[in-house]
Amino acid sequence: MTTEKMPATVRVGNTALGGGHFALIAGPCSVESEDQIIGVARAVQQAGATILRGGAFKPRTSPYDFQGLGAEGIRLLLRAKEATGMPIVTELLALRDLPLFEDVDMIQIGARNMQNFDLLKEMGRLKKPILLKRGLANTLQELLMSAEYIISEGNDQVILCERGIRTYEPYTRNTLDLSAVPALRELTGLPIVVDPSHATGKASLVPSMAMAAAAAGADGIMIEVHNDPACALCDGQQSLTPETFADLSRKIFRIREVLA
Amino acid sequence: MTTEKMPATVRVGNTALGGGHFALIAGPCSVESEDQIIGVARAVQQAGATILRGGAFKPRTSPYDFQGLGAEGIRLLLRAKEATGMPIVTELLALRDLPLFEDVDMIQIGARNMQNFDLLKEMGRLKKPILLKRGLANTLQELLMSAEYIISEGNDQVILCERGIRTYEPYTRNTLDLSAVPALRELTGLPIVVDPSHATGKASLVPSMAMAAAAAGADGIMIEVHNDPACALCDGQQSLTPETFADLSRKIFRIREVLA
Amino acid sequence: MTTEKMPATVRVGNTALGGGHFALIAGPCSVESEDQIIGVARAVQQAGATILRGGAFKPRTSPYDFQGLGAEGIRLLLRAKEATGMPIVTELLALRDLPLFEDVDMIQIGARNMQNFDLLKEMGRLKKPILLKRGLANTLQELLMSAEYIISEGNDQVILCERGIRTYEPYTRNTLDLSAVPALRELTGLPIVVDPSHATGKASLVPSMAMAAAAAGADGIMIEVHNDPACALCDGQQSLTPETFADLSRKIFRIREVLA
Amino acid sequence: MTTEKMPATVRVGNTALGGGHFALIAGPCSVESEDQIIGVARAVQQAGATILRGGAFKPRTSPYDFQGLGAEGIRLLLRAKEATGMPIVTELLALRDLPLFEDVDMIQIGARNMQNFDLLKEMGRLKKPILLKRGLANTLQELLMSAEYIISEGNDQVILCERGIRTYEPYTRNTLDLSAVPALRELTGLPIVVDPSHATGKASLVPSMAMAAAAAGADGIMIEVHNDPACALCDGQQSLTPETFADLSRKIFRIREVLA
Repeated sequence: MTTEKMPATVRVGNTALGGGHFALIAGPCSVESEDQIIGVARAVQQAGATILRGGAFKPRTSPYDFQGLGAEGIRLLLRAKEATGMPIVTELLALRDLPLFEDVDMIQIGARNMQNFDLLKEMGRLKKPILLKRGLANTLQELLMSAEYIISEGNDQVILCERGIRTYEPYTRNTLDLSAVPALRELTGLPIVVDPSHATGKASLVPSMAMAAAAAGADGIMIEVHNDPACALCDGQQSLTPETFADLSRKIFRIREVLA
Repeated sequence: MTTEKMPATVRVGNTALGGGHFALIAGPCSVESEDQIIGVARAVQQAGATILRGGAFKPRTSPYDFQGLGAEGIRLLLRAKEATGMPIVTELLALRDLPLFEDVDMIQIGARNMQNFDLLKEMGRLKKPILLKRGLANTLQELLMSAEYIISEGNDQVILCERGIRTYEPYTRNTLDLSAVPALRELTGLPIVVDPSHATGKASLVPSMAMAAAAAGADGIMIEVHNDPACALCDGQQSLTPETFADLSRKIFRIREVLA
Repeated sequence: MTTEKMPATVRVGNTALGGGHFALIAGPCSVESEDQIIGVARAVQQAGATILRGGAFKPRTSPYDFQGLGAEGIRLLLRAKEATGMPIVTELLALRDLPLFEDVDMIQIGARNMQNFDLLKEMGRLKKPILLKRGLANTLQELLMSAEYIISEGNDQVILCERGIRTYEPYTRNTLDLSAVPALRELTGLPIVVDPSHATGKASLVPSMAMAAAAAGADGIMIEVHNDPACALCDGQQSLTPETFADLSRKIFRIREVLA
Repeated sequence: MTTEKMPATVRVGNTALGGGHFALIAGPCSVESEDQIIGVARAVQQAGATILRGGAFKPRTSPYDFQGLGAEGIRLLLRAKEATGMPIVTELLALRDLPLFEDVDMIQIGARNMQNFDLLKEMGRLKKPILLKRGLANTLQELLMSAEYIISEGNDQVILCERGIRTYEPYTRNTLDLSAVPALRELTGLPIVVDPSHATGKASLVPSMAMAAAAAGADGIMIEVHNDPACALCDGQQSLTPETFADLSRKIFRIREVLA
């Protein structure tokens, strides 16, 4: 395995993760409108976020659920990038959509595609950071092997993301495995991001777990923020308001000082 | 959800599953050579198998492991079909390979792609049976929803496959969830196949679990058989010899008589 | 570990398990009244059951749930034994209750006490068969080590019981791990019983899983049967009626003939 | 359920947990000798620990493993308490040993006994704090119900402890479920302790997870510290040296300031 020899720092637009660089990634679960995405982008940027997230193509368990705005969602994200200067990250589900991602700064490969090896190999032929999420029930070794599928094709700009694993506990949507952060640190030089929003599925638990992720040494934390969580088209129950996010952001940066 | 209204019988070449039809699907994990695949095909056919399985494109955790013979593997499978008259099933990993599958009788979507929704939708546009395997840690409801992705695009020839789920128990490769058979029977009319080979990962456990699958009411059982398990290029430790398979086949059919 | 050298047959009253002996263990989740337990005992005996089960001391998640009839429950079980001649098995929760178990033929140690090592050691000092249930999330090796706690104190009459393990799947109460049957067979000579009632938690799934357990080679199957499931004080939704049990019993014995 | 009405603060000797009080609990996995336990006690006290932990009666998977010093271990713990003034916590396995625990300040009920309801009820008759550890695969609701078994008998001095749950991930001994901290906070007023040592099973991961536990809002953190981890009789690979613990302690208290 070659991941151990990987560069510790991955640049994403005008910011970076790993090697001492930390990124707060924030934004709505789904892009819904130009006003919404630019409004959230400005709010999270002001609160300390350096990368904007937002779903355009949404992987949904049921074919009858809202599947995201698609190409229009990407266009709106690029508008928000233009308006704020923030680099953007969004999920790719199908190779045929790849041309739409040319100006996207980082491509997310979601948990359900962590072992979609064909997709991984194609990501390896790009010159762009890839945010690779751990699968629902995948081991850390499998996550690293999936990163290898990308790296072995020539793209070493891979960022790993812990987003909760599936267990028997029903109180949370998934069980956030924060020990993955120091464990992966022992196994690889790739930057490590934590997503407490999808992991817990409950906005009330996100601040505590985001602070815990910072204390565990994550290189980045990805948090869902929505201007009006109660009306979100997708996963509103796990989204923070911009105000809660701003307060959390301050605490995260103070915790990072303790680790320094 | 429309799966409940689905036809109970799916035809695969000259045979069928569901609605009282039972299929024994057998063959090697990977296609290795013309002699091997035709030899195994003849042996399992004589022992009662009605569908030939064999991997050409192999999903492997590591990019450095044997990835299957690819297009050449499909060609050899088709040779075995020609030689024996058995319909064939093999896994599709990437859409670009689809043209190679024109004469394949049933396409397998593997556990790692159970929520590769783009691939599922494409399967829904085919006029061909799809063997959809349950993901490593997916619920029965999620399996049915993935079937819906195929069905809602127009292809109702979906067969569900239980192949073991991931648990904490290390003795077996996965934990075969046989209760999925009667449970899915309550939830859907789609035929249900069980794969005890991938579930247990140990040839010594396969006969007991194959008989148990028959007793649980499966519409089909898929078993790995290799002419020389000790020398198999992939998963030899879970493959039966043709002799063991022949003995098992007799018992499976006798158990089915008890259920009649 | 000495379990491998253990005798393959354990006698329970006038019957036995292991070494070719098979036992159908049946009865209500909880003993409720003399009429109920004697009525169910007669019905299951006529249908082929050779051991009567019934809970007197019930382990319940909540202290506010029905905890069983206690000493009175044991007395009623002994009345049913007297009336039918069937040996009885019932669960022990606390050492102080041990004197009440003198005429009980087999003591059950439940899943929640599988690693109550003090209780296990005391069981090792008895001259009585012990039915040791696998814990909610215990490995086969841990189950064998718990058996060792009993055996190493001098009592080698231990019978192992698979009763489902905890997983993420919500459709069933637990996930019945039937591969435990052939797996334990490779690791130990101790008899192996399967409990499909607690494993699935649904009466509709019990017959299929009981037949599957027989096909997997279990030495005994333990099934909850209640004269009036809809009115049972505990776990009625997983209890069979005597009629369904009688039909199932016939099929189980026919499946055992296939294995012979 | 009455846990919500419970007092937020539990006093343990000269210190307290909950309601704003925080305790660092430290000491060796097993008490081994007078020199060892007093030496470790002095070292962790100086580094900020306020409660001394140490195992005298050890729950071990195998009956052939070291089972702890027993009564002699309790005697040595009491000597360390005398020497340092620190209150002590140690695990009770069997009711018959209860008389030995008279001067023990807090009794630990281990993960394997979380649903040993008889033991729980007896704990409810004591006037002493009980540290109740979450079982290997128990839900938060089940943990609260086990606390209810204690509380409903009259003892409301219950402290809950998250110590990792069993999952499929092999890199760590268990998976520390830190979301249990804010989740339990929503469900109960009882103090919440985290044990990162048993959760991870690896000393190298303990500091990150202890800091994460502090950031998640735990009322106490329990850490294994051994004067000579490489020679520990039990679980040395997860024990910190006193030096590492001292450094960690400083960071934990700084993180708590961020939360204040």
